[in-house]
Amino acid sequence: MKKTQYVVVGLGRFGASISKELIKLGNEVLGIDKDEEAVDEMSHELTHAVVADATDEDVLKSLGVRNFDCAVVAIGDDIQSSILTAIVLKDLGVKKVVAKALSELHGKVLHKLGVDRVIYPERDMGIRVAHQLNSPNLLDYIEISKDYTIAELSVPKRLCGLTIKQLDPRAKYGCSVVAVNKQTGVIIAPTATDVVNENDVMIIIGTNDQIEEFESEVIR
Amino acid sequence: MKKTQYVVVGLGRFGASISKELIKLGNEVLGIDKDEEAVDEMSHELTHAVVADATDEDVLKSLGVRNFDCAVVAIGDDIQSSILTAIVLKDLGVKKVVAKALSELHGKVLHKLGVDRVIYPERDMGIRVAHQLNSPNLLDYIEISKDYTIAELSVPKRLCGLTIKQLDPRAKYGCSVVAVNKQTGVIIAPTATDVVNENDVMIIIGTNDQIEEFESEVIR
Amino acid sequence: MKKTQYVVVGLGRFGASISKELIKLGNEVLGIDKDEEAVDEMSHELTHAVVADATDEDVLKSLGVRNFDCAVVAIGDDIQSSILTAIVLKDLGVKKVVAKALSELHGKVLHKLGVDRVIYPERDMGIRVAHQLNSPNLLDYIEISKDYTIAELSVPKRLCGLTIKQLDPRAKYGCSVVAVNKQTGVIIAPTATDVVNENDVMIIIGTNDQIEEFESEVIR
Amino acid sequence: MKKTQYVVVGLGRFGASISKELIKLGNEVLGIDKDEEAVDEMSHELTHAVVADATDEDVLKSLGVRNFDCAVVAIGDDIQSSILTAIVLKDLGVKKVVAKALSELHGKVLHKLGVDRVIYPERDMGIRVAHQLNSPNLLDYIEISKDYTIAELSVPKRLCGLTIKQLDPRAKYGCSVVAVNKQTGVIIAPTATDVVNENDVMIIIGTNDQIEEFESEVIR
Amino acid sequence: MKKTQYVVVGLGRFGASISKELIKLGNEVLGIDKDEEAVDEMSHELTHAVVADATDEDVLKSLGVRNFDCAVVAIGDDIQSSILTAIVLKDLGVKKVVAKALSELHGKVLHKLGVDRVIYPERDMGIRVAHQLNSPNLLDYIEISKDYTIAELSVPKRLCGLTIKQLDPRAKYGCSVVAVNKQTGVIIAPTATDVVNENDVMIIIGTNDQIEEFESEVIR
Amino acid sequence: MKKTQYVVVGLGRFGASISKELIKLGNEVLGIDKDEEAVDEMSHELTHAVVADATDEDVLKSLGVRNFDCAVVAIGDDIQSSILTAIVLKDLGVKKVVAKALSELHGKVLHKLGVDRVIYPERDMGIRVAHQLNSPNLLDYIEISKDYTIAELSVPKRLCGLTIKQLDPRAKYGCSVVAVNKQTGVIIAPTATDVVNENDVMIIIGTNDQIEEFESEVIR
Amino acid sequence: MKKTQYVVVGLGRFGASISKELIKLGNEVLGIDKDEEAVDEMSHELTHAVVADATDEDVLKSLGVRNFDCAVVAIGDDIQSSILTAIVLKDLGVKKVVAKALSELHGKVLHKLGVDRVIYPERDMGIRVAHQLNSPNLLDYIEISKDYTIAELSVPKRLCGLTIKQLDPRAKYGCSVVAVNKQTGVIIAPTATDVVNENDVMIIIGTNDQIEEFESEVIR
Amino acid sequence: MKKTQYVVVGLGRFGASISKELIKLGNEVLGIDKDEEAVDEMSHELTHAVVADATDEDVLKSLGVRNFDCAVVAIGDDIQSSILTAIVLKDLGVKKVVAKALSELHGKVLHKLGVDRVIYPERDMGIRVAHQLNSPNLLDYIEISKDYTIAELSVPKRLCGLTIKQLDPRAKYGCSVVAVNKQTGVIIAPTATDVVNENDVMIIIGTNDQIEEFESEVIR
Repeated sequence: MKKTQYVVVGLGRFGASISKELIKLGNEVLGIDKDEEAVDEMSHELTHAVVADATDEDVLKSLGVRNFDCAVVAIGDDIQSSILTAIVLKDLGVKKVVAKALSELHGKVLHKLGVDRVIYPERDMGIRVAHQLNSPNLLDYIEISKDYTIAELSVPKRLCGLTIKQLDPRAKYGCSVVAVNKQTGVIIAPTATDVVNENDVMIIIGTNDQIEEFESEVIR
Repeated sequence: MKKTQYVVVGLGRFGASISKELIKLGNEVLGIDKDEEAVDEMSHELTHAVVADATDEDVLKSLGVRNFDCAVVAIGDDIQSSILTAIVLKDLGVKKVVAKALSELHGKVLHKLGVDRVIYPERDMGIRVAHQLNSPNLLDYIEISKDYTIAELSVPKRLCGLTIKQLDPRAKYGCSVVAVNKQTGVIIAPTATDVVNENDVMIIIGTNDQIEEFESEVIR
Repeated sequence: MKKTQYVVVGLGRFGASISKELIKLGNEVLGIDKDEEAVDEMSHELTHAVVADATDEDVLKSLGVRNFDCAVVAIGDDIQSSILTAIVLKDLGVKKVVAKALSELHGKVLHKLGVDRVIYPERDMGIRVAHQLNSPNLLDYIEISKDYTIAELSVPKRLCGLTIKQLDPRAKYGCSVVAVNKQTGVIIAPTATDVVNENDVMIIIGTNDQIEEFESEVIR
Repeated sequence: MKKTQYVVVGLGRFGASISKELIKLGNEVLGIDKDEEAVDEMSHELTHAVVADATDEDVLKSLGVRNFDCAVVAIGDDIQSSILTAIVLKDLGVKKVVAKALSELHGKVLHKLGVDRVIYPERDMGIRVAHQLNSPNLLDYIEISKDYTIAELSVPKRLCGLTIKQLDPRAKYGCSVVAVNKQTGVIIAPTATDVVNENDVMIIIGTNDQIEEFESEVIR
Repeated sequence: MKKTQYVVVGLGRFGASISKELIKLGNEVLGIDKDEEAVDEMSHELTHAVVADATDEDVLKSLGVRNFDCAVVAIGDDIQSSILTAIVLKDLGVKKVVAKALSELHGKVLHKLGVDRVIYPERDMGIRVAHQLNSPNLLDYIEISKDYTIAELSVPKRLCGLTIKQLDPRAKYGCSVVAVNKQTGVIIAPTATDVVNENDVMIIIGTNDQIEEFESEVIR
Repeated sequence: MKKTQYVVVGLGRFGASISKELIKLGNEVLGIDKDEEAVDEMSHELTHAVVADATDEDVLKSLGVRNFDCAVVAIGDDIQSSILTAIVLKDLGVKKVVAKALSELHGKVLHKLGVDRVIYPERDMGIRVAHQLNSPNLLDYIEISKDYTIAELSVPKRLCGLTIKQLDPRAKYGCSVVAVNKQTGVIIAPTATDVVNENDVMIIIGTNDQIEEFESEVIR
Repeated sequence: MKKTQYVVVGLGRFGASISKELIKLGNEVLGIDKDEEAVDEMSHELTHAVVADATDEDVLKSLGVRNFDCAVVAIGDDIQSSILTAIVLKDLGVKKVVAKALSELHGKVLHKLGVDRVIYPERDMGIRVAHQLNSPNLLDYIEISKDYTIAELSVPKRLCGLTIKQLDPRAKYGCSVVAVNKQTGVIIAPTATDVVNENDVMIIIGTNDQIEEFESEVIR
Repeated sequence: MKKTQYVVVGLGRFGASISKELIKLGNEVLGIDKDEEAVDEMSHELTHAVVADATDEDVLKSLGVRNFDCAVVAIGDDIQSSILTAIVLKDLGVKKVVAKALSELHGKVLHKLGVDRVIYPERDMGIRVAHQLNSPNLLDYIEISKDYTIAELSVPKRLCGLTIKQLDPRAKYGCSVVAVNKQTGVIIAPTATDVVNENDVMIIIGTNDQIEEFESEVIR
């Protein structure tokens, strides 16, 4: 099966991280940056890495970018280059263009230019970290809807040796335990007699309020 | 109940996002930045926002920072300031210090200085985006363990009207449907006769391979 | 009758010239520039002139820009500011937005963002000057269509005292004299016996080839 | 016939536009700029393009500039270079020297140094654009004298199907229709029964007041 | 008697020295410089000293510069300001404008603009110092014509006690002693019996060759 | 006879002028400057010209500077380099070191370091120009003592045809005519019947007051 | 008794350290620096601290510096300021001027200008640290002459409990123990039966070779 | 015996001085600096000198730094580089890491990162110089304990010819003379009849008060 081909413009911390993970997931990645040092550092990790000005349509054409499956504009702090690169990529006919925005206004411009997906990494990561700080045992979470969340909670020492039955989040708080990650492996849909230990991690589903109450009264 | 008090040093995109979300979650936040403009922009959103050099212990003392519950060092690109701020915060006795690192080496220094948690927002966000690009229907995910994942997958038009039974991921791929987010609300632990529609979102639990196979063969 | 209200963003040479001419034509003009000196110089010539950052939507709102009839983005060399200002003006609902582009790519972005008219002053002026250099007696011209032009030609000393009949461009070259500007006044649709003198200016209509031949063989 | 030879000093937006149009009109152009990138971009479009400091008389001599028919000083923002280049060109004996001025004072210096024609592209283009904004249907115009103008006006939908007779600008406003540009071609000196359609363009001659009245009452 | 009024633009080392000497010679001097510090330092030494941009005609008018007897443009290293200031001063109608040139080309521009006298201080001082280095006993000199010079020569120890007769430059070299500066006073047209002593200074007139021969054979 | 060898450090306007005049007077000159462009421009005019840092003793040694007869430190605006170069030259044992000072303080340091002669070109030239402005017919002058001066005065049209007797400066003002430069040649010690014409130049000797009175009452 | 008055110019790390120690030793110190922040930080530690340019003689006069007992020029990295300050201080008649030199050449200039003592802190500290690194038990030392040294050596665990007699450096190596610093106090001229313990420090006098041999064979 | 191997990072004044002294003491030194000029100047004085970025672990590995006995971080003014270099060196397993700190805070970070010894050269040198200024005859000193000092004092002219008995510091002040450095050699433990002469240097041991009293009353 043909590998998916990505072009990532901008090899700063964010672009480098995307590029390396895409390679790890089995894709091909062409990395482009104006800065020679940034390209040098990535050249052994990516399929190709070139020093180029991505706002120059001829350059992107000569690199065959129009045949790539997806382009990621991960340019760090230069809104002008980000915008000009995005329009060149759309003009070249790249099927899917994803771009990082530095501000709401920047994101709005990218949308109007036809960018398929606009990402706000610092904003989104800030929100995620704020939630984790707010609930110290919250390791990660998915917001399923405006009201429902799946949360990954670490089990504190204090609860060590209790059974799911004893904790009984469903009865007391209305939320259920979807899985428990124990050192011996993950138990999906644990039964009432399963015991949690320190360092175990529970996956809970429920409304935001149910989970918050459970986290703050039982887990914390 | 007393509100938790956070001090966030550095009000760039990442620091501003954390600060605003912490406020939204009901906490008190003192924002500090060297840049007057950055402070002005946030001054109406936070409990307090001051222009100050956070590497100056006397300044932090006079702001009463030692009594805060948690400090977040969200300084953008200045490794020196990040390090010096972190050690001043630890020396002042702030209970929990969280800091953003720009590189592995920077992170290592922060760890050695006793920082309680080191965050790599661009790296982590890059990995998350790479996964979403790689699986176009993957909206979000939690890595429960090295092998197990909970994934949030959007239901494509093509599968519209099928029941969970017809999709039957458990039988065919070994992974189970934990919940379905429908326009009418979230169904937790859906039954075999529940129907999925376009724009519904399924929450699946299973091993990485099971979910990837299910996503690429059924959902995509 | 209510005066038309213009806002001109960028008071460099181009923006200042537009602003002053619009005032002269009886309109109201609000001039905006980031540079205090530029604003000071124009403050006595315009209805209002303010120092402001036009990429900040709140600033433009507080200036009441949404009620203006037309906005001109005449920003000098900063493509990013030009783009962000343009989208803010469109978002505010200004009826007509005109913007100066520095390059084809810049112009393309402005078009996609909904700018009503994109101007390339240096390019257009360059073309006009090139034509005037190429035909030394050509003072000005309008390209009516791909083939037809109206040209304003100065009459050289050599032709002094000749009648329109003697010059007879229609018979010899196929183009007609629309008007002659003489020191005594403009003669529209001159007759065959009207005489041209040195420093008179003829307005000729015809195809590009007709006019070029007439200019190079008779006038030059 | 020997081609006219131009030297254009300064290959910014204005100089590049003049140069390319002069080439298109069949002339030879030597482009000179201090900036290597600017020269590279134009090297395939011009007869010759060289990186050189045009304030150095020896350099211009060695390029044979003294034998050129006309020199255009199109230097962007550096008044000193513009002045020094102009005097070197005059000293070398170039027959005709045309120079762009950035301000009235700059223009006055150029005149005193014997420059044959001083151009103010941003100022002139600003005036032209202001007139077009002021009269939305005005596409272009030539100022024949202080009082008389030839104007190119687009025909609005509303007037579609009317004859010249019905519009009758001469009777009602005193100005005459010189030509009409229709999709089927240009009609010079249209008759009373000629019909105008949407998107047709009329060429009108008359006094400024006549045309303005006609434009604002009939066309707009 | 009314004092002569000078305006000196540029208060660097050269301009400051001219200004102070003009004051010492009993004139009135208005000093102008863009740099506040330079103006402060001179403010107690000159009649007036103001911080101003001398390329702005309105500024010079408001300072009443047009009524001054003479203007000196002593601007240090900024050729553009020097040229623009010179033309503004000429336009204002200042009777005499003297300007410092940094290069031959700069001097040529100043001449064309009507500057009454162009000075090359570094070049002229360099020539003077070279002559003094070349003839170690030469203190100063005036070139009367291409061939004749008046030279001021210090008398070396070796010649101490000799009479003019014994030195007899007229008989041996053809040049005459115009005067001798002795500690007791200046002797004009010394007689043959006048004696020279160490540290006396002789004023000699003659052709360049006569003086050079006398200096190198007798004095040195 | 062996030519005198000079080394000139700093090839700006002042240093270049000294160097070229020394060459013209028949000497050998080694020019040194840090700036490659300055060296290139002088390389064909001097015996040798090298790009070097003259504050590095090893560099000066390797250039054999210790054997030169005289060194001139003509460094433009860098007081530190001037001082360090001067001490290196003295340490190397160069017989005579002459240096340009930018201020009194700088001159004082140079003196203390043993520099044989300190020159203030801008100050001295400023004084000279001030005197010439003050007495418009004064072309040049030598201050013989505190009281006596030799002055070179141009003869105005008004005096044309008068004899020395008629002018009689000695009788009326106490100063004598040493020589007259006429187009036909220089007359030394002119007689009473010698006639002066327009454009002749008189050399006058006398006290400052005598000459000033003569200049202002007769010549001006 | 009147306190000694010091002026310290330059309040960087070196100047600040001198100033604070001089205060601690009971002297009065006036600190001077161009940098406001540096002055602010020291203002509570010194008798006076002012922001001033110490190369300006008038400024130092107005501060009464001429009456101080000693001036220390501790300027960080600006050789020019260091030299000019030094000469101004000497000219003012300050009795003792001490200055920090950045290089041998700088030091030579300071000496020639009459500076009483020139210090090379980085060089001297580098030598001291090198010796301590070279002999790990060497805490400090004084070079009495080219051959003799007094060394302060820490006693290693291994020698714990031995008497001076048992160590007997005089008999075996020729160097004597001058004193021993024990936790209970300093023993001057210890006797043969005095015992050394871990963490004791011995003061040894002898030739360099004796001490080095003793240190490397016994102590290390 | 194998030579001790040092790596010194940072070849400024302090690092260069350490490096040269270590070489002089018979060790091997690898010097590292980012600045090519600094490396060039030291390349003939050290075992090896390379241009490299010492914050890059791979670079240090490839230079074999992990096998060196001791590393000195002597980086001038870049706190970030100092910290990152220190942690890389510790991570590589270098046995002993010594680092220069620019401030207390910097020093605290270095300590926490496991640096074996932190040096404050400017601070320590400042203290030493302050003591020498305070006691003009104090040449050097070792602080043995909080109370006891060994001081090296120069003998003034006034005391010339006195015996130790006559000075008798022990009887009058309680401190003893450990040695006297005379031009003829060092006398250790001088007897009561030994005579001191001008320029002799005495080594005194005693409490701080004893020595200060002796210095201020007898020696000064």
